[in-house]
Amino acid sequence: MPLTVQAIIDQLCSSVPPISNTVDILMAGYPDTEVRGIAVSFMPTQQVIERAVASGANLLITHEPLSYSHRHEEKLIENDPIYAPKQKLIEDSGIAIFRYHDYCHRKQPDIIMTGLLAALDWEAHLTEMLPVAAIVELPSMTVSDVAAHVKRKLGMPFLRLTGELSAPCSRVGLLVGYRGGASTAIPLMREHDLDLLIVGEGPEWETPEYIRDAAYQGRSKALLTLGHAESEEPGMRALSVELKQQYKDVPVEFIPIQPIFQIV
Amino acid sequence: MPLTVQAIIDQLCSSVPPISNTVDILMAGYPDTEVRGIAVSFMPTQQVIERAVASGANLLITHEPLSYSHRHEEKLIENDPIYAPKQKLIEDSGIAIFRYHDYCHRKQPDIIMTGLLAALDWEAHLTEMLPVAAIVELPSMTVSDVAAHVKRKLGMPFLRLTGELSAPCSRVGLLVGYRGGASTAIPLMREHDLDLLIVGEGPEWETPEYIRDAAYQGRSKALLTLGHAESEEPGMRALSVELKQQYKDVPVEFIPIQPIFQIV
Repeated sequence: MPLTVQAIIDQLCSSVPPISNTVDILMAGYPDTEVRGIAVSFMPTQQVIERAVASGANLLITHEPLSYSHRHEEKLIENDPIYAPKQKLIEDSGIAIFRYHDYCHRKQPDIIMTGLLAALDWEAHLTEMLPVAAIVELPSMTVSDVAAHVKRKLGMPFLRLTGELSAPCSRVGLLVGYRGGASTAIPLMREHDLDLLIVGEGPEWETPEYIRDAAYQGRSKALLTLGHAESEEPGMRALSVELKQQYKDVPVEFIPIQPIFQIV
Repeated sequence: MPLTVQAIIDQLCSSVPPISNTVDILMAGYPDTEVRGIAVSFMPTQQVIERAVASGANLLITHEPLSYSHRHEEKLIENDPIYAPKQKLIEDSGIAIFRYHDYCHRKQPDIIMTGLLAALDWEAHLTEMLPVAAIVELPSMTVSDVAAHVKRKLGMPFLRLTGELSAPCSRVGLLVGYRGGASTAIPLMREHDLDLLIVGEGPEWETPEYIRDAAYQGRSKALLTLGHAESEEPGMRALSVELKQQYKDVPVEFIPIQPIFQIV
């Protein structure tokens, strides 16, 4: 039986009850296409799609959308001169592109979370895996030590810090992607008595300002903002390894992206 | 007649039709308190409130909320050990704190926008003032030149860049605060044929990814992310100057904040 796009989607979404109004859609291509090669990336940039096509993949699995908006607002890219060549590339190549986001995060454990933990080499320090966060307990060190570790392990040129580099820290909460907002991060920090939050991204006037007040009060509380992609790409890389083990008859390639921000 | 908190709020909100469900509320204190001194800041951090009280001000006007959430979610800070000392400081001092956000942005022109333009010394380059953005046309220069100018004028240690430093640019769109999201920024860039967007903040997978695709296509499109506070603080400073001229019998002080992120 040929391996179809739909068969792979079904496998990815299995073990999770149906999610209504999900953003996990086949953004390009057809469900019954036979898959000859799989590419996995955090983001379907034009460069990533080109690389996927060049590698011979005809199914690209990404965490984020094609059209620069979480809910795939088609109007945003209608007659857009920048989106048009990307659309043409997709049509000319016939590549299928599936977004694996909600089902991925809902799976227990969430590979985006376990992928980050593994990349940080912190699996042995995990004390609690919550639906939206992981709590780790590190040997006592400073925020500066943790920042250096994170940069080295994730190959990142810089991090955004709120709080003090010299603050001691042991109890750390990890919140991937856009979970850095106050409604998730503040109760987590309070209820789990955390010293440090490591997040993807979140509104700047929320959690960072809470940390600013805490640090001003002399408390050892800090926040490291990795960037959305930096926090979730390790999980997508881990997914590509899983797929490689699962589908031995088709090549599976992981395509990394460059940091979206340069500090100038 | 004594100058009350309410009289100043009424004056701030005059010339704008009533906004329903506004976030502009008296977050602390009482409307009929007589104002002895006014402090203005972007953010009511604990340090800012202390400085306002120490300066003798009993009315603090800020752009952002006390409670780390745009819609003032009280539950977020209930029994919170970090918020508690801030609340005690407010109660002990009796300071009134008014949030001037929606009415401020709705006023034409929006002082947050004109304040940024003035701080950048770009008033003469303004070609169009839209309700949510300003379009300026600069003498042709590179993104690198613009970045250096912005850093110098706003006293900023760094900027986040997406795109190329060497890209030429002339037509620039400014979007303060959280207006850097795709739904505002992408149509603006397309419809006004902009080379460069300068924004406060926005979701990382939206506008920055659009710019990434554009730059990959060899187009001279770039994005400078200033930070939410960095983009709006100049406007609050301009407001303090206006208030000083308006209320000559009470002292008016502007209280700046430090950058919320340190790059490490």
